[in-house]
Amino acid sequence: MSRDPRHDILFEPVTFGPKTMRNRFWATSHSTGYGSERPGIQAGFRGMKAEGGWGVVSSDFCSIHPESDEFPWTSSRLWDDGDVINLGHLTEEIQKRGALAAVQLWYNGMHSPRLEARETARGPSPLPSNVFPERNVYASYADHDDIRAIINMYILGAKRAEQAGFDIAEVSGGDSTIPLQFLETRYNHRTDEYGGSLENRARFYIELMTALKKAVGDSMAVTTRFEVDTVNGDHRIKHFDEGSKFLEIMEKEGVVDLWSLKIGDYEEWGEDAGSSRFRESNWAAPFIQGAKDLVSVPVVSNGRFTSADDMVVAIRNGQCDIIGAARPSISDPFLPTKISEGRTDEVRECIGCNMCVGRMQQQALMYCTQNPTTGEEYRRGWHPEKFTTVTEPETVLVVGAGPAGMECALTLGRRGYLVHLRDSANELGGHWRSVAKYPRCSEYGRVIDYREVMMSKLDNVEIQLGVAPMTVDDVLDYGAEKVVIATGSHWSTVGLGPETHLPLQGVDASRPDVLTPEQIMAGKEVPGSNVVVLDGDGHFVGFAMAEMMADRGKNVTIVTNTHDVFEFSKFTMEMPNNKRVMHEKGIGYIRNHWAVGYEGGKLQLFFLYKDSAALSEQRPGQWGRTFSDEVTEIACDALILTTSRVPNAELYAGLKEARGRWEESGVKAVYRIGDCVQPRHAMDAVFDGHRLAREFESPDPQRPLPFIRERQVWGHETFPKLGDARPVVEGDLLV
Amino acid sequence: MSRDPRHDILFEPVTFGPKTMRNRFWATSHSTGYGSERPGIQAGFRGMKAEGGWGVVSSDFCSIHPESDEFPWTSSRLWDDGDVINLGHLTEEIQKRGALAAVQLWYNGMHSPRLEARETARGPSPLPSNVFPERNVYASYADHDDIRAIINMYILGAKRAEQAGFDIAEVSGGDSTIPLQFLETRYNHRTDEYGGSLENRARFYIELMTALKKAVGDSMAVTTRFEVDTVNGDHRIKHFDEGSKFLEIMEKEGVVDLWSLKIGDYEEWGEDAGSSRFRESNWAAPFIQGAKDLVSVPVVSNGRFTSADDMVVAIRNGQCDIIGAARPSISDPFLPTKISEGRTDEVRECIGCNMCVGRMQQQALMYCTQNPTTGEEYRRGWHPEKFTTVTEPETVLVVGAGPAGMECALTLGRRGYLVHLRDSANELGGHWRSVAKYPRCSEYGRVIDYREVMMSKLDNVEIQLGVAPMTVDDVLDYGAEKVVIATGSHWSTVGLGPETHLPLQGVDASRPDVLTPEQIMAGKEVPGSNVVVLDGDGHFVGFAMAEMMADRGKNVTIVTNTHDVFEFSKFTMEMPNNKRVMHEKGIGYIRNHWAVGYEGGKLQLFFLYKDSAALSEQRPGQWGRTFSDEVTEIACDALILTTSRVPNAELYAGLKEARGRWEESGVKAVYRIGDCVQPRHAMDAVFDGHRLAREFESPDPQRPLPFIRERQVWGHETFPKLGDARPVVEGDLLV
Repeated sequence: MSRDPRHDILFEPVTFGPKTMRNRFWATSHSTGYGSERPGIQAGFRGMKAEGGWGVVSSDFCSIHPESDEFPWTSSRLWDDGDVINLGHLTEEIQKRGALAAVQLWYNGMHSPRLEARETARGPSPLPSNVFPERNVYASYADHDDIRAIINMYILGAKRAEQAGFDIAEVSGGDSTIPLQFLETRYNHRTDEYGGSLENRARFYIELMTALKKAVGDSMAVTTRFEVDTVNGDHRIKHFDEGSKFLEIMEKEGVVDLWSLKIGDYEEWGEDAGSSRFRESNWAAPFIQGAKDLVSVPVVSNGRFTSADDMVVAIRNGQCDIIGAARPSISDPFLPTKISEGRTDEVRECIGCNMCVGRMQQQALMYCTQNPTTGEEYRRGWHPEKFTTVTEPETVLVVGAGPAGMECALTLGRRGYLVHLRDSANELGGHWRSVAKYPRCSEYGRVIDYREVMMSKLDNVEIQLGVAPMTVDDVLDYGAEKVVIATGSHWSTVGLGPETHLPLQGVDASRPDVLTPEQIMAGKEVPGSNVVVLDGDGHFVGFAMAEMMADRGKNVTIVTNTHDVFEFSKFTMEMPNNKRVMHEKGIGYIRNHWAVGYEGGKLQLFFLYKDSAALSEQRPGQWGRTFSDEVTEIACDALILTTSRVPNAELYAGLKEARGRWEESGVKAVYRIGDCVQPRHAMDAVFDGHRLAREFESPDPQRPLPFIRERQVWGHETFPKLGDARPVVEGDLLV
Repeated sequence: MSRDPRHDILFEPVTFGPKTMRNRFWATSHSTGYGSERPGIQAGFRGMKAEGGWGVVSSDFCSIHPESDEFPWTSSRLWDDGDVINLGHLTEEIQKRGALAAVQLWYNGMHSPRLEARETARGPSPLPSNVFPERNVYASYADHDDIRAIINMYILGAKRAEQAGFDIAEVSGGDSTIPLQFLETRYNHRTDEYGGSLENRARFYIELMTALKKAVGDSMAVTTRFEVDTVNGDHRIKHFDEGSKFLEIMEKEGVVDLWSLKIGDYEEWGEDAGSSRFRESNWAAPFIQGAKDLVSVPVVSNGRFTSADDMVVAIRNGQCDIIGAARPSISDPFLPTKISEGRTDEVRECIGCNMCVGRMQQQALMYCTQNPTTGEEYRRGWHPEKFTTVTEPETVLVVGAGPAGMECALTLGRRGYLVHLRDSANELGGHWRSVAKYPRCSEYGRVIDYREVMMSKLDNVEIQLGVAPMTVDDVLDYGAEKVVIATGSHWSTVGLGPETHLPLQGVDASRPDVLTPEQIMAGKEVPGSNVVVLDGDGHFVGFAMAEMMADRGKNVTIVTNTHDVFEFSKFTMEMPNNKRVMHEKGIGYIRNHWAVGYEGGKLQLFFLYKDSAALSEQRPGQWGRTFSDEVTEIACDALILTTSRVPNAELYAGLKEARGRWEESGVKAVYRIGDCVQPRHAMDAVFDGHRLAREFESPDPQRPLPFIRERQVWGHETFPKLGDARPVVEGDLLV
């Protein structure tokens, strides 16, 4: 196939500063949790984007100095020679595949928890951080010597970046970093020439870019990523006011080679990485449109773009010159190549679930729901588009076509196995088909779309839908040499959840006033007006049920055991908007409670912390808390249970028990994947199916092979060593 | 000085299994965040305890298999040869200093978030985790093959531990690990021989200990740390019931060389690491007393012991044979030596603040309020009891005797400097003296006690209290060659906090109905009956104010911007008991709100998420949220402000401005430390003062010298490599 000519424009080179990128695809800076401390994973991950055709590939946000320390939220670092070695490997992996390498220079000032380096970060005013409000994080006031020192940190950081081989030095002027701390009246209460008027508040940013341009601008492009609207309160940077004016002010200085524009500050990072539950593709366009009229250098704009046509529109209508993408590049590093080759139907589209963001926010390693090779390129040796072909193909029966089953069948198929994928439903997707019908969750259906398209191109994968659920005998008699059970899970029908781990007395989804998500999606009537969602899940399903009911005019209350409602959304950066929607729709929530009984239209609840704090002698020789039997009652005409999930484990258990009959049936092995082993996020179910298929010939495929662990090994050289000198940033470096 | 003969008993050796420890001091297993991935920091930290005289020094909790993966809460690991190398360095550092090395073998089953290894952990029943309730963490059901495999994992883990040089293999049977998951009816819903009766539920634990004893018991002591009461709900393991019965059952088996007993499960870990705000030293005694009557091997008991006399009582009254200590060994690794040498007044007593616990819970690196060398032994080369003596002592004036100033003066004094420490208060301690008077916070005063005692032993440190506050001229005229400003901070008097960063309209602590903590402690009257604490701090001060008011009979409400009340207490494991006390005392809380005004006995509040979730065109060309001006009012006769802190920065700023006069005044340098630079936790203020004193002769002492960073450097060997075989645990290993 060949490229659609309407997409040719995306493959034009763009020049900025001394650099030219090969096309209009910029994989913008995003965190991963890999940092510069896991150089193999980091370079394996980013190098794949270069291989996939991106014109520029960016690093993580990268700290320029130990003062800017957000550990254990993991940034990259450019503090010392060890970082130069590690990031040098990164630039090499990017550049040998034809892309430019960009580093994002980052100093966090007042939002630096400094849990690793223990230094004192500086900012325009000595204020407490609203990003880490509970951790006693403040800026120390930056006087003129401090301002000079900070700018020198950026210069030294950029020089180390150049040593490490980077082409582009991008200053982070978003995420509430120090340039924005000076720019925003919220954070800048100064009365000297760095505070007050917009020109004064812009002075730091201007001096910074000027100094960088002078220091490295002949050999590196010097760019910045700027929040043109911080979308946080009324005293924010507004795109139509100070955001635009700042672009004009900076344009006059001529020290920025390129602008990468975004919206949303660090507290409202969910507006930058807008999830699909709240923001459709290119949601930031109205904020960014018009910026190109104010500047004379190229503009990059993100927007969770997955459609080539949408990208072309953004370019042609003057929104931007370059398509920025973080999450779409995670979901499909080969996005540019697939567009270039006319294979747009094969693009693995980002679903905007923000599980990737959620990994970073959990201070863990980043993975992706759609792309199970994310973070595994190096440590397990997985390439998203390349698969080893099996030398002796076998026949494989995959029972269950949910995320795990589909991914396993597809991957086995790509490897040359002869696969039958069977499901009793009439459509692919398992329970995920249903999830994609929840309010706000339609893009989640892309998990199914992609696999459906790709399997349709494989002659060796046959899909059978609408078949009768399989029994042990059915499986053994089927005629496949190997079997993979992927029968998923279901929501508890008895309200068993993480609090107490007991079923709720008298509660069962056979009652008309007790419902599970499956029943609701199948159309079971929801009686009465007062609906309670009892949520032990903490992610998005309970929210979906609650919103559905509120939209039907019910009075909805969520009861959860956790300290906050839908607590996982703190990680996906959806909590603020979740709370806004619940506020708008009058959905109430009761936290730190669980249910003990439900009858007569009343749900009895207890507070998790109702008992005494003190431990005392309750009876002679019997110590413990003084228990309280306080119970609260709330009105409840219908109780929706999202308390926990239960694996559909019976088929596998039956097959295992019938192990004595496998040989005679010609079955060499039976494996299991996904929720039927252990209910989990779809991201992990897809991974599970993928891994089994990749390792299908290993000695024991059910168990993962070892992966490379990156860490300090005793005896290996360290950077720094005790006694090393610290880089000097005080004084006149920038003159 | 020599040892008090009453303490001799603490220095008797104790034999268990094939091992003999040199005295009755066991530094029990506790997490650090260092893991086995930072071998230098880990071994430097633990080795110091051995040097300080502990008879046994334990590792972190140590995962035996990738399935048991709590990353980014960092455990040690025994998964592969790289771990054996790294932990080998640990055992070496412990043993060369005369202590035995213990490893804590840990498998977390249903509570394994598996964010790094992505494997499926198994447990007695397929239940959701209450420890990580919002993260979709479940166990997969362990059939008999799985149970065998898990036990084999322990065996292989113990064998790797032996390779690494450990003397003692301690099975974690606390912290809701898998032995407890089988033992507890809450977690074990099985109907086979591993579930039901207590004997059945104990079977797994018995088989595990038996297999370990058989595999390694000739060369290693095989012990266990057991939660004799899980202190969590009514269906818990109770010390007077199943806890004791289990000890009896296991005693008959004869496979446990020693018991280390504790209380509190993983969800209620705050009962194991009881903070001083809730639990006095040896609070678990009533739960543990009597255990020694049921077993024939030695018993270890923890209790935040810092007093040698208390330790002797616990031994003599039959509570235990060995004193276990985690936090007191962090606070003072030389505790045993100091007792042995009759220097009990020099013990740096743990204050039970749980900042150490809080570091681990923030998934960061562990430090300690009392002991600033914690975690710095290796990476900065600091020894808690040894200091390099300065070759050319100078005179140093330290202004301010709070935590930072005291620590700096003491450390400079230990290094031979001639120090004058001055404070305008009549007592040492700065604001911390006041904090130690808050309800529940009296042990916090030990930060002052220790430094007071140690400075009193130094002729070269002179303390001047009750002096007039110093001006710039006073400092310059004082006659010191070097000056350290440690003037601390104060609570904002205008209600400025992380939400909005604006003072509250019309609010000022000069009003009789507006109060700061300083004013309350100084006796300012609190008018009326409805008191609101406006908290932007998120730690413990707002709680202290609220409790004080409730104890005076006021109606108290806390208003906080954060998602949960006193959110930092989630890290110090104090949140459950905080909430219990607030419930008992009728203290209410309003979350995600902030104040906009206060007048006429009413506090006006707004909800942080009152605006629209959607972004739309508010006016032509102006996009953003639709703002709501909803305001709630609550009754408020007195408003207490714990919104944020303000550095007392003027003296330093004035001195810096007067830099031109230093030389003529004989002042060579002026430094600053602690809250006057940036308000912070006391732990970080103590560190700041300590570091400056350690690095007082460096080229720029105000700025920290580089420390060793442990991480993967590109080009260094990795463990594993792709293609390595995985250890086989399925099958008959344990036969």
